[in-house]
Amino acid sequence: MVKVGIVGVTGFAGEKLLEILLGHSEVKVCNLSAKIEQEKDIGEIFPKFKNRLELPCYPVEKASDKIGSNCDLVFLALPHTVSMQMVPTLLKKGKKVIDLSADYRLKDVSVYEKFYVHQHQDKANLSTAVYGLPELYRQKIKGATLIANPGCYPTAAILALAPLFSCAVEEIDPKTIIIDAKSGVSGAGRKLLEGLLFVEVNEDFKAYKVNSHQHTPEIDQELSKLADKKIKTIFVPHLLPINQGILETIYLKKIKSRGRIKGLHKLYSNFYKTEPFVRIRKEGDFPRIKDVLNTNYCDIGICESEEYVIIISAIDNLVKGASGQAVQNMNIMLGYPEQMGLQ
Amino acid sequence: MVKVGIVGVTGFAGEKLLEILLGHSEVKVCNLSAKIEQEKDIGEIFPKFKNRLELPCYPVEKASDKIGSNCDLVFLALPHTVSMQMVPTLLKKGKKVIDLSADYRLKDVSVYEKFYVHQHQDKANLSTAVYGLPELYRQKIKGATLIANPGCYPTAAILALAPLFSCAVEEIDPKTIIIDAKSGVSGAGRKLLEGLLFVEVNEDFKAYKVNSHQHTPEIDQELSKLADKKIKTIFVPHLLPINQGILETIYLKKIKSRGRIKGLHKLYSNFYKTEPFVRIRKEGDFPRIKDVLNTNYCDIGICESEEYVIIISAIDNLVKGASGQAVQNMNIMLGYPEQMGLQ
Amino acid sequence: MVKVGIVGVTGFAGEKLLEILLGHSEVKVCNLSAKIEQEKDIGEIFPKFKNRLELPCYPVEKASDKIGSNCDLVFLALPHTVSMQMVPTLLKKGKKVIDLSADYRLKDVSVYEKFYVHQHQDKANLSTAVYGLPELYRQKIKGATLIANPGCYPTAAILALAPLFSCAVEEIDPKTIIIDAKSGVSGAGRKLLEGLLFVEVNEDFKAYKVNSHQHTPEIDQELSKLADKKIKTIFVPHLLPINQGILETIYLKKIKSRGRIKGLHKLYSNFYKTEPFVRIRKEGDFPRIKDVLNTNYCDIGICESEEYVIIISAIDNLVKGASGQAVQNMNIMLGYPEQMGLQ
Amino acid sequence: MVKVGIVGVTGFAGEKLLEILLGHSEVKVCNLSAKIEQEKDIGEIFPKFKNRLELPCYPVEKASDKIGSNCDLVFLALPHTVSMQMVPTLLKKGKKVIDLSADYRLKDVSVYEKFYVHQHQDKANLSTAVYGLPELYRQKIKGATLIANPGCYPTAAILALAPLFSCAVEEIDPKTIIIDAKSGVSGAGRKLLEGLLFVEVNEDFKAYKVNSHQHTPEIDQELSKLADKKIKTIFVPHLLPINQGILETIYLKKIKSRGRIKGLHKLYSNFYKTEPFVRIRKEGDFPRIKDVLNTNYCDIGICESEEYVIIISAIDNLVKGASGQAVQNMNIMLGYPEQMGLQ
Repeated sequence: MVKVGIVGVTGFAGEKLLEILLGHSEVKVCNLSAKIEQEKDIGEIFPKFKNRLELPCYPVEKASDKIGSNCDLVFLALPHTVSMQMVPTLLKKGKKVIDLSADYRLKDVSVYEKFYVHQHQDKANLSTAVYGLPELYRQKIKGATLIANPGCYPTAAILALAPLFSCAVEEIDPKTIIIDAKSGVSGAGRKLLEGLLFVEVNEDFKAYKVNSHQHTPEIDQELSKLADKKIKTIFVPHLLPINQGILETIYLKKIKSRGRIKGLHKLYSNFYKTEPFVRIRKEGDFPRIKDVLNTNYCDIGICESEEYVIIISAIDNLVKGASGQAVQNMNIMLGYPEQMGLQ
Repeated sequence: MVKVGIVGVTGFAGEKLLEILLGHSEVKVCNLSAKIEQEKDIGEIFPKFKNRLELPCYPVEKASDKIGSNCDLVFLALPHTVSMQMVPTLLKKGKKVIDLSADYRLKDVSVYEKFYVHQHQDKANLSTAVYGLPELYRQKIKGATLIANPGCYPTAAILALAPLFSCAVEEIDPKTIIIDAKSGVSGAGRKLLEGLLFVEVNEDFKAYKVNSHQHTPEIDQELSKLADKKIKTIFVPHLLPINQGILETIYLKKIKSRGRIKGLHKLYSNFYKTEPFVRIRKEGDFPRIKDVLNTNYCDIGICESEEYVIIISAIDNLVKGASGQAVQNMNIMLGYPEQMGLQ
Repeated sequence: MVKVGIVGVTGFAGEKLLEILLGHSEVKVCNLSAKIEQEKDIGEIFPKFKNRLELPCYPVEKASDKIGSNCDLVFLALPHTVSMQMVPTLLKKGKKVIDLSADYRLKDVSVYEKFYVHQHQDKANLSTAVYGLPELYRQKIKGATLIANPGCYPTAAILALAPLFSCAVEEIDPKTIIIDAKSGVSGAGRKLLEGLLFVEVNEDFKAYKVNSHQHTPEIDQELSKLADKKIKTIFVPHLLPINQGILETIYLKKIKSRGRIKGLHKLYSNFYKTEPFVRIRKEGDFPRIKDVLNTNYCDIGICESEEYVIIISAIDNLVKGASGQAVQNMNIMLGYPEQMGLQ
Repeated sequence: MVKVGIVGVTGFAGEKLLEILLGHSEVKVCNLSAKIEQEKDIGEIFPKFKNRLELPCYPVEKASDKIGSNCDLVFLALPHTVSMQMVPTLLKKGKKVIDLSADYRLKDVSVYEKFYVHQHQDKANLSTAVYGLPELYRQKIKGATLIANPGCYPTAAILALAPLFSCAVEEIDPKTIIIDAKSGVSGAGRKLLEGLLFVEVNEDFKAYKVNSHQHTPEIDQELSKLADKKIKTIFVPHLLPINQGILETIYLKKIKSRGRIKGLHKLYSNFYKTEPFVRIRKEGDFPRIKDVLNTNYCDIGICESEEYVIIISAIDNLVKGASGQAVQNMNIMLGYPEQMGLQ
């Protein structure tokens, strides 16, 4: 039984995380905090948790001390740039930390500072943080004390491309990697912005941060490592009028056109053969968001045209794209069965 | 050709009003203003109006003088309590004013002050303002200079009940008038509230201001006048996860149960026989929101059970419930055909 | 460990049931069938179940024999009038049966035949079937072999009214019980009807079967038993443009107006004190659908006006209103902890 | 004043067409028909048209004769392959015909037969039919008697690409034209398919007909004509959980990377300078569906990355993508102002 705390429980990821952890038989949630004015019962903040958990939620400032004494592992579901202010103290106290923000994902500080427009304040821990994508870094995660939980868009993109970039990158034109991504609104966080009001989003659809989204360098960092050369993707995110879910349609140009890449589909099936949370579709069959909603799965479909490979991947941005993956990482770190508490 | 101004064009009602007026052949929109920091082209604020109207939108404060010189009639699409600060000046300058706020709807100042929690600052004009429900007050509207444009919920409720309360109120138990109302989100205005965020509203449904909504006294005032006795309704509004539209399900208990009210359906048909914007359904047939969306119609269906009359009425809260009705009032005031520019 | 079968797994209730049972540690799903042309893997029908369950789904006709040999308990998630064709055989084979249809809910055959427009074909078992609302019939459920799982609307209505009708019915005018109900679209089942198409339902809202819905007699039957006198409610259902969830707003007229019913709120709290799945809100606080979505809870809020009691109850129509309640019944029948596999 | 008929008025395009025509001051709608069992008033089929138009809707078979005698121009809003059975007769009778189906769009019969899996039955008229995209073929439309009204996806794609393909196609790699398209559900027509049910589409998102959609050859045909060489696009459509609207995100690879295409934005502005229904955004600014909803506009935004041009275009699939464009074509054919009745 592990005692855990959630910092930032009132955000979408924090709320989902609590929901998942309540169903995890080896977890005792002991400490909740968030950016609130004063202490409140979690059942008052979220009536859906009433009777399921009797626990106060503290203002973040007041939570720190208590986290020290009553938790073994802390999830940080905080906005970017806020996490790195808490991580050093928590690590010093000997806590394991799973950070859902972007603060420890980008290994190149200058890239972080360009895309998040903020100086990095914890370079020391940045270098030891492990990028928490179990399908690629399971061994490192086992021994980690600080996990940089991947971004939602990168999770779907990297899983969709990892087999090809690990094993057959020479088949692909490295300058034609186009990721057309679509996400539900919870991906933007619970923020009071006019653009996130119901009447603004409902019955609408739009692109945003066209080719300038902060998840682009995260995707490029991981694909470059896999391909062992510099990869630069074209990444265009769009806002879907739904609560949860990401679908990414990825276009890759083949080097040798008019022929099929030998064994492409098999390559994918084999690559993920033993993975509990990645499912490869039959050829010509593609996932939809509904297939993965409220699950920790990433579903991937692949097809080839004469000159292109088209890959479609789907995840729930709040589960495999955030809180589910965080729990998966926790399971690995603590030696629990990887699927425990997840579906 | 009349020259009009819209104050508060960036709200939902103001935006819809501009859209309607752009299709009105006898209107020239000359002045736009809103609560904004600095002057901006309306096509920049709402790209949908680009190429359709070249006009700056001014901050409200700077608009006042210009409204004076270049408009004949002004629509105020402002929050409650703000309108009454502008009305006296506009009237003094000889403008006709159609106020979409609640500031001039309630004849009893103490009721206004209780429900809007604000002192009334223009009692002088309150007494001469005409409640702009054409189906009841067409003659008065013709000669009015200040129109109190009705609230959205009251429009649907009063039109649903007017025939019965005017002509057969003795058939009904005056203590059992239950209005279960459901409205789309635009009814709440374009406000930055957490409760109006997409993820909060989408896939949800709830009651709010149960039996305490500020539209209750407006409904009661008008029904009492029609019935010539004090009427007090039970009014419970709910928030629908749609952009526009109101549906109200109204339950009335009959005095003499187990008999039918003679000629009830005919009473309704006759009452609205010549009305361009009220449609009565066949018996047992009920309107849905889709039937009136983006139109100025109020559709009404009636049925009787042994002991009850059930009435369902539907309007588009932004059209018949706000901007369309405002244009209908304008048409009447200026002698244009009542349906001009409306559908 | 119990071996169960689901007949009708491709409907919304069947699909949800399977999802819940996959998370139940004492259940082994052994048999799936549905109205399909030919055998198919469940992971092919619902890609979301891929890798989570390897089981064929049989056409209903071919399933019967197998159900006999490899299941202890069978859930029937079939359309009304189809269930009663299978129940006698299953019972004879010694299976326990939980029937999610309406076939065994109404004790008065003539009422069933009037509202479902079909002759009842299994009157023998009708008399022994237990109405599976645990909050009222837990003891009987324990010993039952055939459960009539309650309807979704009735579950929300009966739980909202049971304390009052059991303990203080004399405070209430028995002729003024108005239930204004709103349900998400899955309540209608997975049927190919034009009225259930996305474009028809989305951005719309409407009443249907006004005061003639087949759940009305089910509500009346149970309330009459509780009150020990004949109760007849006014019940008007509406279709919400959401996937799941029911909210009912209930209006009751007090006999002695202008006074408060003594201890009403406490009555409710006490009545459900030990219930794991009913939560009573503080006075003046009301549930929304989001509070109970994907849970087995029924949340209830109560307020009093001078002359009325207003009660609002919310459930997830597919969970407490169908499959969750079915699992709750199973847990009780088999002696498992009542909350097992549920949240 | 022109007398028009609509065949197929009960489909989404037919319904929208009627709505638009009711606001057109030079049109008298004289004849309505659809695939229905027996004659019905249009106000009965669509209550929203009640009081706005008193006209029967006939079963298609019975309509033919009447269309002959009382209409000058006929809109065919019929499924593909049905239109071409009616066109020859209508043309012989001297009617002008605007066909909203795909039957006369593809000049290469073999391509039509491959993608629509049906023999073409009216090759004679196919050769004289004019592709009704006013921005490219205005002169031909003026003299046409048979218009092949463009498909919704092609309208958005061709308008987005026409300036570049007409004037600067040499800057672009002809093998890297990727169109990632997203459409609201009405694009699929009012069909009773399980995949179009509310619960299936709502809160979901998916690709369909990946690189095999029947609109692909229509896009390729027009782009090839503009570029004067064979163009083959990659076209992947997706289904958005909204009623109306299309957004297409288009990726083009530049031949000379790392330099900007000289004057690209100006090229677009100039190309559409005098067009009433195409709006080009400022650089770096992109349209959303809301900007064009219920209007006949196509809004286009353009940006360049080092190696790519990204173009985003938005239309309302039922207006500029179907019925609005049909009315625009009618206006041109009959010499009315092109914007008459449209917004």
